[in-house]
Amino acid sequence: MKYGTIACNERSGVFLLMNTRTVFFLSDQTGVTAETLGHSLLTQFDSQGFRQLTLPFIDSDDKAQQAVSKINSAATEDGVPPIVFSTLVQDDFRAEVRAANCLHLDIFDVFLQPLEKELQQKSSHEAGRAHGMSDIEGYMKRIEATNFALANDDGGIARNYEMAEIILIGVSRSGKTPTCLYLALQYGVYAANYPLTDDEFDSGSLPDILLEQKSKLVGLTIAPTRLQQIRKERRALGQYSTAQQVRYELREAGKIFKKYSVPHIDTTELSIEEISSRILNTTGVERRVRP
Amino acid sequence: MKYGTIACNERSGVFLLMNTRTVFFLSDQTGVTAETLGHSLLTQFDSQGFRQLTLPFIDSDDKAQQAVSKINSAATEDGVPPIVFSTLVQDDFRAEVRAANCLHLDIFDVFLQPLEKELQQKSSHEAGRAHGMSDIEGYMKRIEATNFALANDDGGIARNYEMAEIILIGVSRSGKTPTCLYLALQYGVYAANYPLTDDEFDSGSLPDILLEQKSKLVGLTIAPTRLQQIRKERRALGQYSTAQQVRYELREAGKIFKKYSVPHIDTTELSIEEISSRILNTTGVERRVRP
Repeated sequence: MKYGTIACNERSGVFLLMNTRTVFFLSDQTGVTAETLGHSLLTQFDSQGFRQLTLPFIDSDDKAQQAVSKINSAATEDGVPPIVFSTLVQDDFRAEVRAANCLHLDIFDVFLQPLEKELQQKSSHEAGRAHGMSDIEGYMKRIEATNFALANDDGGIARNYEMAEIILIGVSRSGKTPTCLYLALQYGVYAANYPLTDDEFDSGSLPDILLEQKSKLVGLTIAPTRLQQIRKERRALGQYSTAQQVRYELREAGKIFKKYSVPHIDTTELSIEEISSRILNTTGVERRVRP
Repeated sequence: MKYGTIACNERSGVFLLMNTRTVFFLSDQTGVTAETLGHSLLTQFDSQGFRQLTLPFIDSDDKAQQAVSKINSAATEDGVPPIVFSTLVQDDFRAEVRAANCLHLDIFDVFLQPLEKELQQKSSHEAGRAHGMSDIEGYMKRIEATNFALANDDGGIARNYEMAEIILIGVSRSGKTPTCLYLALQYGVYAANYPLTDDEFDSGSLPDILLEQKSKLVGLTIAPTRLQQIRKERRALGQYSTAQQVRYELREAGKIFKKYSVPHIDTTELSIEEISSRILNTTGVERRVRP
């Protein structure tokens, strides 16, 4: 047993040597679907001791056999069979992996048959149509939306707010930039962002350039202690990350959200996916492309 | 029937009125897993006529019942039962949806039981552990990696190449920026990028600042016609998007990749996911966080 973790049993207080379990994500393409599916399922279990490996682009018999030997080696090393999340489309590669020493969880095995029956259509069984360039238009939209987010980041020079579908406002480090980029890359949505600073706090007002697009505004807020922590990692010293400054900015931003009835989201306990999904849900903006 | 598509049968040449089929992605959280899984499966079928709706954050009985009425309404409007990809974790909500008029495909129904058996552990059945803030460390890494990508974009001012795990080089619009951002947001990987321009083409060399980190370099290349098309959308006029210029730059970039034996990837037919996955595969850089 090569990989092991010392873990303490909470009830008994006894230390145990836990086996590491290897988890494989197998795909004839990028592996994104297998990773996303597998990760979702594994979060339902105590995650100690999972070693995760992605084997993408299994598109030949050689590569399928290499994957099988990696799975079998891990089984021997760990002393327990690996868990394999697979999205291999081709029947012969699937059959090879199924014969390996592992728990084989295959989304195509399980879901294609009921879908074929319901749609009264045979599935193509062609590799690599997900996350691929089959949808070239979708690809261009994501790239364009990403360029838009970069040009319109942090009240940047472009300010094409009439083209934006969503405009995020909030204080520095409240989560605006990563959210805009995620909305662009994942969904092809045009999102700009504008930082609230002393200009807005002193006047208590938003600039006309934003008010002209008021329906697109979404505010981001965050707990003061969390914001202070994030700002300290960026710039440890100076006014920027003091408790006083952070509280002042968040209070003033809150007044502005209230004055203009801007819907706002507290990002303190949320991941980028959650913030993005809530914004789309709040605004009703359509996901132009899908992961 | 509210939504319909006129489609031409390729063999018979006869025009048919195709039913639109509504596809729902249901989740007690963001819906990302349901969307990713569902999208992967649907690409195996002729995609005409799918209307896709995401219903995230179904975390109460009220919301589950609202989802059920939306599903049943769509069934009536379309004249065919919707397809529902669901990642609801709580048993009672799952049971409600299962009773709706739809083809219900549930990843938890199918995969949790074999996983519980293999891991000899009961799953938590708690909503919202995937894509959530359970992994706050992972969240911070993604944010930091995104900030790094932004600061080190296009040979930007930061140039912290010693901190980078991957440095992409290539001509303007070969896909460097979206790929770096995707690697950061999806996997928490530190990726910088440096544009190849006349400085490099005239000298035929890479600057020392890159050569010091040679093992991290990955080149991106692209077909001339495709690059010209992409550049024209950005700047229609001028030297930048002429066939001659595009061919010259790609040829010179190719010489540099060869001179320094830099591994390179042709992005012409690849999506952002595919480029990213190939880069991780080529370099062996570990996925620090997972979708």
